[in-house]
Amino acid sequence: MKIKIGGKTKDYRTVWFEKGSVKLIDQTKLPFKFQIYTSRNYAQTAKAIKDMIVRGAPAIGATAGFAAAQAALEFKGIGISKFHSHMSSASKLIKSARPTAIDLAHAVDKVVSITKRARNVKEAKLAAVFQANLIAEQYVSVCSQIGKNGNSLIRSGDNILTHCNAGALATVDIGTALAPIRYAHYSKKKIFVFVDETRPRLQGSKLTAFELSQEKIPHAIIADNAAGLFMNRGEIDLCIVGADRIAANGDTANKIGTYEKAVLAKENGIPFYVAAPLMTFDFKTKSGKQIPIEERSSEEVSYATDGIHKVPISNLSSKVKNPGFDVTPAKYITAFITEKGIIKPSQIKRLSP
Amino acid sequence: MKIKIGGKTKDYRTVWFEKGSVKLIDQTKLPFKFQIYTSRNYAQTAKAIKDMIVRGAPAIGATAGFAAAQAALEFKGIGISKFHSHMSSASKLIKSARPTAIDLAHAVDKVVSITKRARNVKEAKLAAVFQANLIAEQYVSVCSQIGKNGNSLIRSGDNILTHCNAGALATVDIGTALAPIRYAHYSKKKIFVFVDETRPRLQGSKLTAFELSQEKIPHAIIADNAAGLFMNRGEIDLCIVGADRIAANGDTANKIGTYEKAVLAKENGIPFYVAAPLMTFDFKTKSGKQIPIEERSSEEVSYATDGIHKVPISNLSSKVKNPGFDVTPAKYITAFITEKGIIKPSQIKRLSP
Repeated sequence: MKIKIGGKTKDYRTVWFEKGSVKLIDQTKLPFKFQIYTSRNYAQTAKAIKDMIVRGAPAIGATAGFAAAQAALEFKGIGISKFHSHMSSASKLIKSARPTAIDLAHAVDKVVSITKRARNVKEAKLAAVFQANLIAEQYVSVCSQIGKNGNSLIRSGDNILTHCNAGALATVDIGTALAPIRYAHYSKKKIFVFVDETRPRLQGSKLTAFELSQEKIPHAIIADNAAGLFMNRGEIDLCIVGADRIAANGDTANKIGTYEKAVLAKENGIPFYVAAPLMTFDFKTKSGKQIPIEERSSEEVSYATDGIHKVPISNLSSKVKNPGFDVTPAKYITAFITEKGIIKPSQIKRLSP
Repeated sequence: MKIKIGGKTKDYRTVWFEKGSVKLIDQTKLPFKFQIYTSRNYAQTAKAIKDMIVRGAPAIGATAGFAAAQAALEFKGIGISKFHSHMSSASKLIKSARPTAIDLAHAVDKVVSITKRARNVKEAKLAAVFQANLIAEQYVSVCSQIGKNGNSLIRSGDNILTHCNAGALATVDIGTALAPIRYAHYSKKKIFVFVDETRPRLQGSKLTAFELSQEKIPHAIIADNAAGLFMNRGEIDLCIVGADRIAANGDTANKIGTYEKAVLAKENGIPFYVAAPLMTFDFKTKSGKQIPIEERSSEEVSYATDGIHKVPISNLSSKVKNPGFDVTPAKYITAFITEKGIIKPSQIKRLSP
């Protein structure tokens, strides 16, 4: 993604590997400060995941892959069997950083798995770094294809609503929901993006707005409450959101509030698209009813922060209910934008492995 | 409304008149500090309205009535005609505090009007104070009747969603949307209230949650984004909101986000009630399309505050669109809860004067 610092625009990824260190855009400081966090060993990288310096399933996955590569490089012992037991305990620690993030476990397993085919420690270390870089590259390539496919749905002049941050910052680069928006902008289509601020954590007004500003894509932040008004006034042409998990019937778990926007879009005759890589489809989960909803800390609702100061913004003696995600039934989803094309909910079975 | 201070529970109104002073619960400090603001003259009271120490159409109306009474008492000249010209200039100043608040202008006009029937200055001053107190009492009596009527719609065990603050703090006492909730609680029904935090100004998490806490009515604050999830899960039995203006066809302007909740309620088969006094019905406005929507400051979205500290919570270089209200078409409204009973949108014509 493009980032302008000190008058110069540079290309950045959310996470990359450099001389044994994992480099991360520190997302706890955005949009107020752009800072690169350097993690020198796998334990520190696991802690960076836990502390949410990086967030978003694909970005966490790539970071975890690099953490496993660091673990391999850090092995100072002798003998491949000791190496394997070192990797086994390292992977447990990395996986515990965000236990529910499926991409994280997958990436670590992939790196560990390839080292098992190595004949010696040196070869295992090389293979681990190679595999970790490959995982990151694959994320970028999938997002790029989602962008190209999704761009076909956008006409010049369109106003697009997005919710939360399914952007470059949530992946390694480009994003999922923001990928078609980026490609539409690159292909000179005139577009305008309505950015739901996305309470309670404000990933929309903090991260998506930051990304769109950096790319100079015209946009405005709105309170989540205002999306309905703009839809009803005919000021929104289509909606694109990301996904955390898509069940076999097309029911989609995503950031809290996605369901509200999908119902409002349907009521107002506006297409509602979910942009997601194939790996987000979970064919073992039959419907959305089987997807557990994480209840998050009440502090997210009760306090606001700029990353430094924290102020109370609610009646603190009141109870808070803070579900982190909701499930949008497939009937509200026009289509999924994947790296394999635009797929209607009724066509999902085709994707099943 | 009940307020607990220093271990003792006392009954308070949002605004009252005491020895020529206007007393106000300072709503800019809630819920973090409960403080009574004393205004000693009409100019100061007008400024208190402007500074939003008091907000909510009926509360502003009552305060403006008292300001006009202060203006009458402050007249030190001789002769009823000089008194009238003093009142005329005072009423202009009071009305300019919040020019769009229709209750404000009505209340000031009522007080000024009664002084015109007085034979001398002394009688005019007495009449002004009498009329101002009467306006406040009428607000309380109307809210009380709304509470009794609305209570008939609530069953013990019900979970009720409300949006924004249409409580005692927005009126003189009791509230409109919160009136049926208070009466249900007083009549020992077991209820639970879901309080939309109501971005961007957070009147839900700051004011409604404060009122419900003080009354010990079980409740939880939720992000506006979460209301849909709870409706879809079957955890909400009915919705009650207030109104800023109701058109002749039943289309209702209210705090931004009301439209979203109404659409979601309909989609999930949940009754959606608007509690409002008859004076909120505007028969001159044929439909919601004629109601202008106020665009408010971007600061409300970009910053958060506890009344003392202010922190940025968004990408500050981004544009913000911040409509303060939206219009809910009548087809999403189950019924209006008024002091004259429960009225379906199709029955509004009956109310027309």
